[in-house]
Amino acid sequence: MADHYPPDAKTYPTTERTRVRRSPKRGSHAHADVHAILDASPLCHVGYVIDGAPYVTPTLHWREGDHVYWHGSSASRFLRAAEDMPVCLTCSIIDGYVLARSAFNHSVNYRSAMVFGTARLVDDVEEKTDALRHLIEDLFPDRWDSLRPMTKQEVKATSVMRMKIDEASAKIRNGPPGDMDEADHPVWAGVLPIESRLVSPQPAPGLRDGMELPQSLADLIQSGRLR
Amino acid sequence: MADHYPPDAKTYPTTERTRVRRSPKRGSHAHADVHAILDASPLCHVGYVIDGAPYVTPTLHWREGDHVYWHGSSASRFLRAAEDMPVCLTCSIIDGYVLARSAFNHSVNYRSAMVFGTARLVDDVEEKTDALRHLIEDLFPDRWDSLRPMTKQEVKATSVMRMKIDEASAKIRNGPPGDMDEADHPVWAGVLPIESRLVSPQPAPGLRDGMELPQSLADLIQSGRLR
Ligand SMILES: Cc1cc2nc3c(=O)[nH]c(=O)nc-3n(C[C@H](O)[C@H](O)[C@H](O)COP(=O)(O)OP(=O)(O)OC[C@H]3O[C@@H](n4cnc5c(N)ncnc54)[C@H](O)[C@@H]3O)c2cc1C
Ligand SMILES: Cc1cc2nc3c(=O)[nH]c(=O)nc-3n(C[C@H](O)[C@H](O)[C@H](O)COP(=O)(O)OP(=O)(O)OC[C@H]3O[C@@H](n4cnc5c(N)ncnc54)[C@H](O)[C@@H]3O)c2cc1C
Ligand code: HEM
Ligand code: HEM
Repeated sequence: MADHYPPDAKTYPTTERTRVRRSPKRGSHAHADVHAILDASPLCHVGYVIDGAPYVTPTLHWREGDHVYWHGSSASRFLRAAEDMPVCLTCSIIDGYVLARSAFNHSVNYRSAMVFGTARLVDDVEEKTDALRHLIEDLFPDRWDSLRPMTKQEVKATSVMRMKIDEASAKIRNGPPGDMDEADHPVWAGVLPIESRLVSPQPAPGLRDGMELPQSLADLIQSGRLR
Repeated sequence: MADHYPPDAKTYPTTERTRVRRSPKRGSHAHADVHAILDASPLCHVGYVIDGAPYVTPTLHWREGDHVYWHGSSASRFLRAAEDMPVCLTCSIIDGYVLARSAFNHSVNYRSAMVFGTARLVDDVEEKTDALRHLIEDLFPDRWDSLRPMTKQEVKATSVMRMKIDEASAKIRNGPPGDMDEADHPVWAGVLPIESRLVSPQPAPGLRDGMELPQSLADLIQSGRLR
């Protein structure tokens, strides 16, 4: 994949850790590929180690440049355990089932990014507030200013983690099954695409009179994207 | 959640590792909850440790009783690194965005399961074949018998991992934002549900004449489920 980019395109280093060995043609270290996957899905899985054992916690993430962010309670075990520690943050999207003529050649179409770095707590109150504004605005453009303003206690109760992406890889599969040589075998083959999308909004009970769905949210739903 | 079950319902033990501390009311250790989430999504994230550092690899999983399975290349680093090692396998489904009147009260509706155990390689060829048949049949009922039969080399090239679930938890959020006390603030609030579904099938190029989509796949697409 990386060879689709001009030679001066930005890439993360290909290290012993992130060299894609299995199906390397599906791999890339280009910023463009890694970032597109991180941006497409709001959900990631953060891997960290406590007492030598692995933990994987699902959480929302967002990105600014070559940093990823996530947030939670200041008392959260998962945020505290990751602070100043090596983290693997993985973001995956399943795009479809690939049905081949043989069991062996079945697959899925997917896009995934694995990013590695050291998680840091965002200490500074202004930086933290700014990061949380990003979280909201990246998901729901123009929403921040219409919200009831954040209180000091709320900022204090919240931790934001920031991680510079030291190493990263993307891996992408798409297209039909790779078993044209067996096309004669009498069974249906092809792709069952999977779509994840926003559907009809459900207004909160007790919603104040006259509060229509803002155009920016209607546009988001319409777009077929999750953000 | 667990209190919705009769006292004799099967549960995984609540240990220091899996006691849900943040929003404990959203947590459960009931087999019924953990298994329903594992079964609803084919995709999980497997966490394992190499040289003290965490890795999170996306993969397909399936379940039989209180065991989870996954598969890949016999040469895969991710399968080899997990063998006989502690693993955390997490399966998450994002069901919608929850938009509140304050930034702080935003959330997502979700279902997730974290399961812990020690991964074992399935050595026995018959057991391995049987497990792979399960992988296919759990996704695509009635497909196995219509496929070109597996070869010995294919079985050899494939590793299947099995993990007894020693400890597990489920966590579920659903419903509207929890900020009724601020319902007066003039901003739209509510839930933007997210749906993941199979859409129009794409027959493989070169598909043999007369190969119609089998009824079982049409039913699966129609069901709105992913398996
Ligand atoms: C789609 C999605 C998005 C999320 N987004 C965020 C977010 O942006 N910020 C945030 O703070 N949290 C988010 N969560 C919740 C997050 O996964 C954790 O539950 C939460 O952060 C508390 O983590 P903790 O380690 O402090 O919990 P603790 O309660 O200390 O964890 C103790 C034990 O509880 C169990 N447990 C904890 N979380 C889960 C879980 N999700 N599923 C199953 N078992 C669990 C595990 O056994 C764990 O070992 C999200 C979850 C999902 C599924
Ligand atoms: C939705 C989905 C479903 C999948 N299902 C399966 C399955 O059922 N069985 C299976 O074997 N594999 C599956 N994969 C692929 C899987 O994630 C691994 O790529 C594959 O198993 C090879 O793992 P490895 O550790 O041996 O790879 P290696 O090539 O040895 O890994 C070396 C490095 O390559 C990079 N890399 C590897 N995999 C990925 C990835 N997925 N995304 C980004 N970077 C990566 C990382 O930097 C990693 O450290 C799936 C992937 C996705 C996204
Ligand atoms: C009997 C059934 C199956 C066998 C024997 C089998 C075998 C294998 C093997 C050997 C690999 C490793 C490929 C590599 O890394 O070089 C692999 C990877 C994979 N398999 Fe299967 N598989 C089977 C069924 C399925 C099914 C039903 C699906 C999904 C519908 C599937 C999806 C995948 C995916 C997504 C990968 C990862 C490929 C990649 O790294 O891009 N497999 N399988
Ligand atoms: C300024 C913005 C935000 C602040 C200050 C904030 C604060 C917090 C805090 C303190 C927690 C920990 C709750 C706990 O574990 O007790 C948390 C958890 C969470 N937040 Fe946010 N949040 C913000 C925005 C958002 C947004 C925009 C979303 C999604 C749309 C979101 C989704 C979540 C989710 C899903 C959890 C996990 C709750 C659980 O464990 O069930 N947050 N947030």
